[in-house]
Amino acid sequence: MQLSRRITHLTGGGSDGWDVFYRARRMKAEGVPVSELTIGEHDIRTHASILAAMDASARGGHTGYAMVPGVASLRETVAKRIQEQTGVPTTADNVLITPGGQAALFAAHAATCNSGDTALYLDPYYATYPGTIRGVGAVAKAVQTHAEDAFQPRAAEIDAAAEGAVSLLINSPNNPTGVVYSRETLEGIAEVCKKRDLWLISDEVYDTQVWEGEHISPRALPGMAERTLVVGSMSKSHAMTGSRCGWIVGPAEVINHLINLATHTTYGVPGFVQDAADFALNAGAELEEEIAAPFRRRRQLAKEILAGQNTLGLVPAQGAMYLMLDVRATGMSGEDFANALLDTHHIAVMPGESFGQAAAGHIRVAMTIADDEFAQALQTLCTFATERANAVAAQ
Amino acid sequence: MQLSRRITHLTGGGSDGWDVFYRARRMKAEGVPVSELTIGEHDIRTHASILAAMDASARGGHTGYAMVPGVASLRETVAKRIQEQTGVPTTADNVLITPGGQAALFAAHAATCNSGDTALYLDPYYATYPGTIRGVGAVAKAVQTHAEDAFQPRAAEIDAAAEGAVSLLINSPNNPTGVVYSRETLEGIAEVCKKRDLWLISDEVYDTQVWEGEHISPRALPGMAERTLVVGSMSKSHAMTGSRCGWIVGPAEVINHLINLATHTTYGVPGFVQDAADFALNAGAELEEEIAAPFRRRRQLAKEILAGQNTLGLVPAQGAMYLMLDVRATGMSGEDFANALLDTHHIAVMPGESFGQAAAGHIRVAMTIADDEFAQALQTLCTFATERANAVAAQ
Repeated sequence: MQLSRRITHLTGGGSDGWDVFYRARRMKAEGVPVSELTIGEHDIRTHASILAAMDASARGGHTGYAMVPGVASLRETVAKRIQEQTGVPTTADNVLITPGGQAALFAAHAATCNSGDTALYLDPYYATYPGTIRGVGAVAKAVQTHAEDAFQPRAAEIDAAAEGAVSLLINSPNNPTGVVYSRETLEGIAEVCKKRDLWLISDEVYDTQVWEGEHISPRALPGMAERTLVVGSMSKSHAMTGSRCGWIVGPAEVINHLINLATHTTYGVPGFVQDAADFALNAGAELEEEIAAPFRRRRQLAKEILAGQNTLGLVPAQGAMYLMLDVRATGMSGEDFANALLDTHHIAVMPGESFGQAAAGHIRVAMTIADDEFAQALQTLCTFATERANAVAAQ
Repeated sequence: MQLSRRITHLTGGGSDGWDVFYRARRMKAEGVPVSELTIGEHDIRTHASILAAMDASARGGHTGYAMVPGVASLRETVAKRIQEQTGVPTTADNVLITPGGQAALFAAHAATCNSGDTALYLDPYYATYPGTIRGVGAVAKAVQTHAEDAFQPRAAEIDAAAEGAVSLLINSPNNPTGVVYSRETLEGIAEVCKKRDLWLISDEVYDTQVWEGEHISPRALPGMAERTLVVGSMSKSHAMTGSRCGWIVGPAEVINHLINLATHTTYGVPGFVQDAADFALNAGAELEEEIAAPFRRRRQLAKEILAGQNTLGLVPAQGAMYLMLDVRATGMSGEDFANALLDTHHIAVMPGESFGQAAAGHIRVAMTIADDEFAQALQTLCTFATERANAVAAQ
């Protein structure tokens, strides 16, 4: 039986650099004590107060079909939050609640790209980006960023790639690099979008995890609100990864079409999950800071540990829950480094190559294990890298 | 800014017969006591024991990313259930858990239809069917069924429409007609699927609501397991409409591709919702019968009430939570009848025309309000129809 090209060509084929991740999982399942610095998920669970709100909603009877666009109160809460954060006038009509950020990414591309259209994304990238674009039948075209720019995208290179493209997907604070795009970077991107008439799909799910500089939503830049679809989520800000609750913010006319699409793709999000999200967003900044705090702490720990060595280069860790380390002084690829580190020290990190080509020779370290274990693993990683680099220098 | 054709052409355009539904909702909001016999949703909420299982799972820590294919235990429970119901060997590898039956319908079409391919569905149809097909960029082609056949599809007419089509979507027990497809009907459909090399997408979400005859899953017919994708859901069987938890059962190779698609469209279903579903499915037949019982009772009430009149024809009400009534003896279209009934008696029903062309001159009555109110509304509806028919006869 024949399947659609969309589904058979969803992944690019070949090794995607995730072998080391699956190998670490297998080792762990076999009882090897692996330190996993791989996955973008908190080491805490969803806060008990949020789960209590969810239970109260469910027992209160919010178990029937929720409105497809989202529960009115949550749409308003998200709109208010976005308006406060960005200054852009935003109402519930600008908000669609989705079953998670990934569903929002898919819907945003489904709304903007015809089959065969070209959609741009930046390399290195979050693992699902090219497949999300291919999932709507569009052509995924990567624009490289560069280690020497600390992975801040170059507007001119996006412009050069934009001929015939309909959309550009960006992500700041960035996974995998931990970089926060500067105002200059975002203004350059905005100019290209306007010049080339591109939709800008802005994945801002890490917007509560900023350690240096400031998060700027490109929707707030002049002339951009009409062409920007912002993707947000409860996952990272409130440790609600498993609740699958996110949103798209954009022009009301686009949201209307997206509601139609949601009717045919997901038919809404559980009402009790939305009520829990609404509770969480109204719980105030303190809760969000509590959830971000471990990453803030571990980033500081990491800076201190990395200051004691000269082998590994740290890409400016400005936001999100990751460190991107340059391992090229070891003479190894990111993939070889990650495999060797797993074999010799049972520490699992993600090769830069698993996020595209631009981060080759790098590794991504997720700061998602307890401080002590994290510090110890990072120290071991540094020692390992230095030994390897010294061995290369001695050759 | 340009949007994709997929999203701008999702709905067919023009009046879709749902005006009466929205009008009823507005009247109700304005304080008019409308009896709503419109929507396929239980008048009970999700059972407290299921919600307790959900809460226990969430508080127990199942709030992180769940496995994208679904929680292992739920996949196994669904596989076991399907194997017991159908006799078809089924393992967890044949099951993808989805955020509701609608997401399963979308994924099944995304997996089987390329952009521009023709996908068949049967008229009358559940409201989202053609938009779901258009949502994956395919061409939605309706095959009419006929009131004189009690809406059992004719294999020969499907065959005649199948030239160049890649899939056929069916639904038994059927919404909106309440008909359960006979073995003969399903065998005829299976032959056409094999002859024309069609995927069969079989929406069986009403499989626990069968009042007459037997539910046969076409996946169990000879040579069909390899070409059938069964869509199931917790919504109707366990009054969990708002929980958005469903599944696709199909060949393991297809499920593997669908897992890839799910990674890029939804990234899984909340673990605590899946644990609640697993609990519910293991709670046994008694709970399912308790949830189906009101519809069984009201159908019996309806048969007694309808026996006292000769104007309205009842399409055999074999399953699901609906009655399809032939109102043509009143000289009115389904839409005119529904509008007049709403205006004069504040009773809201769905015009047959809102489900396509084949059920024109019919209305769909959802048995989703309390027995007393339901009986009274149906009695009023009968009297109204008889008066209209007499007025026509007297002209």
